[in-house]
Amino acid sequence: MMRLFICTICTFFGVLTAAQAQEKFSGENYVLVIHGGAGSMSPNRIKGEVEAAYVAKLTEALKAGYAKIKNGESSVEAVIAAIEVMEDSPLFNAGKGAVFTHNGKNELDASIMDGKTRMAGAVAGITTVKNPIKAARAVMEKSGHVMLTGKGAEIFAESAGLEIVSPEYFWTQHRWDALQKILKRDSTKVELDHDEKQTFVPTVKNLDEKYGTVGAVARDKNGNLAAGTSTGGMMNKKYGRVGDSPIIGAGNYANDQVAISCTGWGEFFIRTAAAYNVSAQMKHLNRSVQEAAQKAIDEIGELGGTGGIIALDKDGKVAVPYNTKGMYRGAVKANGEIEVAIF
Amino acid sequence: MMRLFICTICTFFGVLTAAQAQEKFSGENYVLVIHGGAGSMSPNRIKGEVEAAYVAKLTEALKAGYAKIKNGESSVEAVIAAIEVMEDSPLFNAGKGAVFTHNGKNELDASIMDGKTRMAGAVAGITTVKNPIKAARAVMEKSGHVMLTGKGAEIFAESAGLEIVSPEYFWTQHRWDALQKILKRDSTKVELDHDEKQTFVPTVKNLDEKYGTVGAVARDKNGNLAAGTSTGGMMNKKYGRVGDSPIIGAGNYANDQVAISCTGWGEFFIRTAAAYNVSAQMKHLNRSVQEAAQKAIDEIGELGGTGGIIALDKDGKVAVPYNTKGMYRGAVKANGEIEVAIF
Repeated sequence: MMRLFICTICTFFGVLTAAQAQEKFSGENYVLVIHGGAGSMSPNRIKGEVEAAYVAKLTEALKAGYAKIKNGESSVEAVIAAIEVMEDSPLFNAGKGAVFTHNGKNELDASIMDGKTRMAGAVAGITTVKNPIKAARAVMEKSGHVMLTGKGAEIFAESAGLEIVSPEYFWTQHRWDALQKILKRDSTKVELDHDEKQTFVPTVKNLDEKYGTVGAVARDKNGNLAAGTSTGGMMNKKYGRVGDSPIIGAGNYANDQVAISCTGWGEFFIRTAAAYNVSAQMKHLNRSVQEAAQKAIDEIGELGGTGGIIALDKDGKVAVPYNTKGMYRGAVKANGEIEVAIF
Repeated sequence: MMRLFICTICTFFGVLTAAQAQEKFSGENYVLVIHGGAGSMSPNRIKGEVEAAYVAKLTEALKAGYAKIKNGESSVEAVIAAIEVMEDSPLFNAGKGAVFTHNGKNELDASIMDGKTRMAGAVAGITTVKNPIKAARAVMEKSGHVMLTGKGAEIFAESAGLEIVSPEYFWTQHRWDALQKILKRDSTKVELDHDEKQTFVPTVKNLDEKYGTVGAVARDKNGNLAAGTSTGGMMNKKYGRVGDSPIIGAGNYANDQVAISCTGWGEFFIRTAAAYNVSAQMKHLNRSVQEAAQKAIDEIGELGGTGGIIALDKDGKVAVPYNTKGMYRGAVKANGEIEVAIF
């Protein structure tokens, strides 16, 4: 039987302390945890129908992944199934809902890692593969490599039999409008600064509209772990910028002890090797998944970065720390009990 | 006064044990360590004039970096200076000496990290920037990002004032001949296998001709560390493959405790987050730089990977472990004493 608990009460209290956020996903026996991005989304905006839409889609993703686990399939299958649901939704900055680059394109990144074998796959800067997480998986399983980029990655994905779409598939009105708004503001800023050569440097102020990622970590009936991450990257990004999502060790990592997926200001997650950081603390210091993940987020915060981490260990313990106002997230236990939360 | 010791005696004895290799660069007070790639180069081929050419160029790179350190400049400046010498030489698989992709192009990757600030920069898949390590530095210092890729990275590098060359600048006869040889062999293999759709999966057998990277780690008069890595990637690579060299945490890492640069079968260095792995062991387990770097290489070996690591800690201690037949490498101490070795 599948039970559904929606933790929306927190929206009345605004930002939670890290401990409070952690308490919502506690105990053991978790088999799948997902996120749909961390940011300073406002409880004033994410409410009513909007909140219901996010909760419904996160629940659908959890159910899709859970079905694989329950059916005895691998953690890799569960991660793919959950992420595919979020990639196919315009709600999240991944797949269909990807933000636009400065040049009005959608450039997608994704990665996956199988904790049992420590095999990994990633794609960066692709524009024509409907589900980037499947491209990452094909890289892992069929290419002999870990990371493929750009046009080459697209050719490989097509040769691997993946569904190819026109780049226009990723066009959505709300992301387009968001880009136009930010382009207008940036052009004003350049004019004011009298410095046409300046490059865009993200600040804490404008991050909220720019970041977002989806991810999943799973533990199958054999106790094997897997982690996946998929993103549309940073809104208005230039110069082929790649964040942490397709970087194994930064935005994604899995071994036989823990699986980790990250979301947030990618540059800081790369500089601190955030995902591997969680694993290293657990391996070397015997830290719990909660303590290790929290310390990884704290380290990012000390450098000035923001974001969130989901981590699931071999015993089914889970951690979901973040230092933003909220993180779209959900988890399901072995008995099918589902939890979903945003704030 | 600068003294020069060339450790060539080892070429008479073939492969060294890890401990023997380590002994050649021992003690403390090192300020700069470089590598020019690890592989199963044969002492029968790397001798006489060929060996002399490598030794001379490694020595030139060490002198260029040492001059910066001696002059009171930063470890970042020293790393750039040393790597620039190797990028400008056709001897190494980086910059001018880059190997060719399957399609007959030269696609270059590089990264740099400043240990003091943990700021980092990387470029992947660029074809027109004369010195990719300088592009990585420009990303670190001027872009607000960590990683830029492809055409976008080239546009950024040009806007940052870097020297742009025609892609033909990277064409060299010996690399072209090597590609033709491997293409011929691969086409034979495809014919024999009756499987035209197979993708190229590297095997230990054909790695030697395919890999190579240059790197440098430095410690300046203020005790600040930096690490840089630059490569032409894997010969005959397809599909926009990116290895560990531009991946912060995998092929490159630096903080206030240690600076690391890697070379070898990049996929394994990504899967084990090799560079960060060295740092994490030192931080969490108080392991020496020698023990940590050796264990990182051992972990790669256990997965079936090969390569080498150079690492320099805050006290000037150095480690140069590798599990290949040889690694082009060199080091200089604060007093200017230079050591160079291959086997």
